[in-house]
Amino acid sequence: MNRLYHFPLSPFSRKVRLSLAEKRIEVELVEERYWEQDSDFLRRNPAGKVPVLRLGNKLLSESAAICEYLEETHPNPPLMPRDADSRFEVRRLVGWFDDKFYTECTQKLLGERVFRKVMGTGYPDSTNVKAGSRAMRLHLDYMTHLLEHRRWLAGNEMSLADFAAAAQLSCLDYISDVDWNRSEVLKDWYAKIKSRPAFRSLLADQVPGFLPPSHYANLDF
Amino acid sequence: MNRLYHFPLSPFSRKVRLSLAEKRIEVELVEERYWEQDSDFLRRNPAGKVPVLRLGNKLLSESAAICEYLEETHPNPPLMPRDADSRFEVRRLVGWFDDKFYTECTQKLLGERVFRKVMGTGYPDSTNVKAGSRAMRLHLDYMTHLLEHRRWLAGNEMSLADFAAAAQLSCLDYISDVDWNRSEVLKDWYAKIKSRPAFRSLLADQVPGFLPPSHYANLDF
Repeated sequence: MNRLYHFPLSPFSRKVRLSLAEKRIEVELVEERYWEQDSDFLRRNPAGKVPVLRLGNKLLSESAAICEYLEETHPNPPLMPRDADSRFEVRRLVGWFDDKFYTECTQKLLGERVFRKVMGTGYPDSTNVKAGSRAMRLHLDYMTHLLEHRRWLAGNEMSLADFAAAAQLSCLDYISDVDWNRSEVLKDWYAKIKSRPAFRSLLADQVPGFLPPSHYANLDF
Repeated sequence: MNRLYHFPLSPFSRKVRLSLAEKRIEVELVEERYWEQDSDFLRRNPAGKVPVLRLGNKLLSESAAICEYLEETHPNPPLMPRDADSRFEVRRLVGWFDDKFYTECTQKLLGERVFRKVMGTGYPDSTNVKAGSRAMRLHLDYMTHLLEHRRWLAGNEMSLADFAAAAQLSCLDYISDVDWNRSEVLKDWYAKIKSRPAFRSLLADQVPGFLPPSHYANLDF
C-alpha cells in the first residue's frame, strides 16, 4: 500500500496530497510528528521533514521533487504545461510559494500561532505575527495581479503552481489568517480550487486544540 | 546580450552561473545589491532576490526554475539524467542543498559572518555561527555517505545536484568554513568540480572587505 507520512497543517504535505488526489493515486495517510525526530522517521528521510511518500518500493522526500516525479510517472491529468516557457512560469511560482510565501507568511503566522504550541516551543512572537500579516497583504495583491490576467496562477490551465499556493493558503485559512474580502478574483480562484474532489481530504483535517472556523470547509465561504 | 543579475557570494546565483557556463551560454554578469530593493530591480523580479537572468527577451527568476528551463531549452551537455527515478534523486538533492543546507549552514555562517556586514545589519550572532558549524559537520558526513556509493552526488553522472551543492560549499569555502580534512572522498569530489572550466569565474570572485583564503582558488587545495 502506498503511504504518505504527513502532518495536517504542513503546506508541503498538502501540496503533495493535492497532486496525488488529482492523479487518483491512492495513499494511506500516516500522521507524523516529524519534529520529534523519531529514529524510524529519520531512516525514512534523513532531512527529518514531511512529506515522505512510500510509493511501491520507493521512498520519496522533498515535496517539489515528489511532485515532478508524480508528473513524469503519472502524467494524467497533467499538472504541468508542455512548452518550456509555460513550464518555467509554473516552476517559478512553485518556488515563490514554497520559499518566499512560506518564509514570509506561513512560517510567521502558522509557525507562531500553531506550531509553537503543538511543538511546545513557547508563546507566539508578536513581531513575527505582525510581519506575517503585513506580508500576507502584499502576497494576496500579487496573486490578484496574476489572476487579473490569467484564469489560473501560472496561465490558463490549472497547474502545480495553483496547488503550491492553495496548500499554503488553506493552512492559513484554517486559522482565519486569509482576508478573502481583499480580492474578489482571488476568492473566486480559491472557490474553484476548493471545490475540486482533490481538496476534500484537506477540508476534513483537524488539529487538536485548534478548531477551524466555520468557513474553512464551506465551499460557499 | 544575455545578462545575469547576481551577487558574488549568493549560492543561488552561483548555481545558475555554473549551469550557464557548463552549457556555454554567454552572459554579462551584473552585480546587484538586491537587499537595497532598488525599484528597477524589483520590476525585474518582484521577489527581490538574485539571481535574475535576462535571456534574449525573457526575464527569469527563481534559481531552481531557471536551471530546469536551461535544461529544457539547452539540453547539451545534460545536467539531468533521463529516467524518472534518477531525475527524482537529482531534484531531491537540489532541494536538500537549496533549502536544508542553505538554511542550516549557509545562512547561519555566511549570513552572519559576511552578509550582516555587507548589508549593515549588525554583528554576527555567535549562537547562529555555532549552530551553523555543528550542522556543517552533519552535512559533510551526509555528502561523504552519498559519495562513498556514487561517483557524483546523485549518481554516476555529474548533475544539477553537484552544482547546487558546490554553489553552497564554494561560498562557505570563501570564508574558510569548510573543513576539507574531514573527508577524503568529499575533497576529491570538490577538486573534480572545482577544476571544471565552468568554475573559473566563481574562483575569481571578490567581495570587498573579505579576502578569500589562499586555498580558495587553488585547484590543489
